[in-house]
Amino acid sequence: MSLDAVLKEVDRNLDSATDRLLDLLRIPSISTDSSYANDCDRAAEWLVSEIQSLGITDVRKAPSSGHPMVIGHADGSGPHLLFYGHYDVQPVDPIGLWDHDPFCPQIVDTAAGKIIKGRGASDDKGQLMTFLEACRSWIAVHGELPCEITLFLEGEEECGSPSMLQFMQENKRELTADVALICDTALFDSRLPAIVTMLRGLLAEEITIIGADKDLHSGFFGGAAINPIRVLTKIIAQLHDESGKVTIPGFYDNIPELPLNTKQEWDDLGFNADAFLGDVGLNQPAGEADRSLLEMLWSRPTCDCNGIYGGYTAEGMKTVLPAEASAKISFRLVEGQDPDVIRQNLRQMVRTMLPSDCTVKFSELGAGKASRFDTSKPIFSAAQTALSEEWNEPVAFVGCGGSIPIADYFQSVLDMNSLLIGFAKDDDQIHSPNEKYDLESFHKGIRSWVRFLAEATS
Amino acid sequence: MSLDAVLKEVDRNLDSATDRLLDLLRIPSISTDSSYANDCDRAAEWLVSEIQSLGITDVRKAPSSGHPMVIGHADGSGPHLLFYGHYDVQPVDPIGLWDHDPFCPQIVDTAAGKIIKGRGASDDKGQLMTFLEACRSWIAVHGELPCEITLFLEGEEECGSPSMLQFMQENKRELTADVALICDTALFDSRLPAIVTMLRGLLAEEITIIGADKDLHSGFFGGAAINPIRVLTKIIAQLHDESGKVTIPGFYDNIPELPLNTKQEWDDLGFNADAFLGDVGLNQPAGEADRSLLEMLWSRPTCDCNGIYGGYTAEGMKTVLPAEASAKISFRLVEGQDPDVIRQNLRQMVRTMLPSDCTVKFSELGAGKASRFDTSKPIFSAAQTALSEEWNEPVAFVGCGGSIPIADYFQSVLDMNSLLIGFAKDDDQIHSPNEKYDLESFHKGIRSWVRFLAEATS
Repeated sequence: MSLDAVLKEVDRNLDSATDRLLDLLRIPSISTDSSYANDCDRAAEWLVSEIQSLGITDVRKAPSSGHPMVIGHADGSGPHLLFYGHYDVQPVDPIGLWDHDPFCPQIVDTAAGKIIKGRGASDDKGQLMTFLEACRSWIAVHGELPCEITLFLEGEEECGSPSMLQFMQENKRELTADVALICDTALFDSRLPAIVTMLRGLLAEEITIIGADKDLHSGFFGGAAINPIRVLTKIIAQLHDESGKVTIPGFYDNIPELPLNTKQEWDDLGFNADAFLGDVGLNQPAGEADRSLLEMLWSRPTCDCNGIYGGYTAEGMKTVLPAEASAKISFRLVEGQDPDVIRQNLRQMVRTMLPSDCTVKFSELGAGKASRFDTSKPIFSAAQTALSEEWNEPVAFVGCGGSIPIADYFQSVLDMNSLLIGFAKDDDQIHSPNEKYDLESFHKGIRSWVRFLAEATS
Repeated sequence: MSLDAVLKEVDRNLDSATDRLLDLLRIPSISTDSSYANDCDRAAEWLVSEIQSLGITDVRKAPSSGHPMVIGHADGSGPHLLFYGHYDVQPVDPIGLWDHDPFCPQIVDTAAGKIIKGRGASDDKGQLMTFLEACRSWIAVHGELPCEITLFLEGEEECGSPSMLQFMQENKRELTADVALICDTALFDSRLPAIVTMLRGLLAEEITIIGADKDLHSGFFGGAAINPIRVLTKIIAQLHDESGKVTIPGFYDNIPELPLNTKQEWDDLGFNADAFLGDVGLNQPAGEADRSLLEMLWSRPTCDCNGIYGGYTAEGMKTVLPAEASAKISFRLVEGQDPDVIRQNLRQMVRTMLPSDCTVKFSELGAGKASRFDTSKPIFSAAQTALSEEWNEPVAFVGCGGSIPIADYFQSVLDMNSLLIGFAKDDDQIHSPNEKYDLESFHKGIRSWVRFLAEATS
């Protein structure tokens, strides 16, 4: 049978596929640091030639307002699939914590199996290569792909995709397909194949409280002059009540309760909340007291202060009353929440808490709605079948507490549903020193996509 | 009359006295920056030779564990006075805000009279030179000083006097006198001659709240993991109640009410609270609601957060849940408050507010008790007479919201009362760019000390 032939081809090719991934990992395509712009360009070039080597000739490096995109097209009948991944990587700081050069990737034997070590191994070069290698083996066996496929690889995901929206709008026709496959997520609990069906949105705002018109000496003004840190901390302290609920007026309005079947699916996952928190040294869920930990993470909104600063913050002491103090606040949003409304309600709440001789400055740091994907579409069943056959485990339909803006863009700009499948593990150290990707993730990831192509086009 | 002769000598000498001050201002004796250590040493050398030029031969640069002290002795009968000042200066950052080189001092004509511009002009080189120049004119007229005088000049005041305590303990006999004259304070409201009779103490503590054992991604952990910034802001927000009172248990125990005569003296000062706050862009006193602004500044204790930091504080956004967050808290203390007790009560209060999976780290950043000087001593009357005659204004007995640790050291180590007299004005920009000292402050300051020496020894 042809599926078996392709899977055998994948197995036969694993060493050379790994070598190709190592080649890509050697390119330090750090997108946020402009001194690596040439390397980002080199990574895009490398991918163009890689895609050509599959036998896909319609491929190009497409300029954007930032680092280039790579777009390839393979004609075919049946569903039109778009595959998305990103070739850029996070910076490597703190470099001193790496046990090897982040851009000299290595295959290392561990008690848990072979791992591929290097910056980008898991996020996202290793993941995007699972799909390219699946295509390679498929074409090697069949001479062509089973359906129309567009490859769409970005080089700015790790710095907030500043060029994406405009690029997508300008290339709408070329990028529109039946569904977007996004390979940038993880297995559930490092073991079950997972499809992400809900993504939280994000709203971020910087709040600066301004008091006196200059920094003051606490000896001369202490006790008499308002301290913006005191005002700011009172505001932040009141964003949650004692039960962990966010106190912004209207914050929970219009949030639907989780469908019962989804709740059941999540209960069935056997998620170990104690272990999840225990892994990072914690033992008390910090969210709404009446919610399960998975709800706190996937289906309930949050409010967090991600950064706070004001006054003297270096070593020792300076008895300053600062003129201002700032906090970066972000919200993970869920279905039913409108970022603009919540931003306005937050601002209004802050203004009502402001003493008469303080002012406040608000700065928008981003906003995006939550996404929920329609799992009743046949493509979800195809993915479910393919993944459970490859991993010999039931597929987890999971939420994701994070925000993947590209999925929101596909939805809002191209009116495309997304299918988020990835093979990363929780201990892959993405964004951190000593990033790795299990060889198992890479190997079974490639095989998963082969099975998915077969299912989706059968 | 001999006093008149000395005052005339002061007037006659003003230009050369100013030139000598400019010479001292040209030495960049920034004590906190070790790259200026040679300049601190040069300033000490300059002062030794300056004191010799007065005719005082028993003078030396005395090594300490940091920058050197300068000690001079002039024998005499009558009271033994010790004069204290400091020759070191603050750093000049931000240098871009200076309208001239901070170490190329200038005499500039302004609508309000001539000013001496340069780092240290007011704090404290200009002030310490008022006393040396007073001695110079006195000796020029009389051939000797009217009493025994010890000159004690420090080079580390601006970096917290790290060597002072040990130096004072090791040189107890040489430094003990009847009273210490400290010239490092200001006129009241830039117009009335002032004697500081109360100094607030200082207690400083850094509090670090620690949650997870590493920084977490708010997408993966937000809602479930405790955020140390949330805990820290709740703690700081609760340090004051709605009426501006500090909530630490026992904080106000043992604080005596202000004596009625002191309260009356302060009421008589005609202090303009609106103008004081208005000058820095504020209009609401932020302290205890039932206290006057001068009480808030001089006789009531305070609590302020002088610095707060945690999470991502650079430009833009990073959706991090930080592993820890820190605040630098300081208290201005008044008579009756024990820094050690308050520190323990603060720590206990913080511990009771700590969620079970957070820990807290405390770091001591300094402690010193408040001081109150006995104004019934004859030396205070002498100063009062001298100052009111020179300035043609009644003398203000004032409090000082700041802490002048040297006064505490003189008291606790040498059992000496201090007499704090200074001629700085509120707009001298000490510690800031474009520091200046009014030529009037310098001139009338010298004359004030001449009158004081006459009164104190009459």
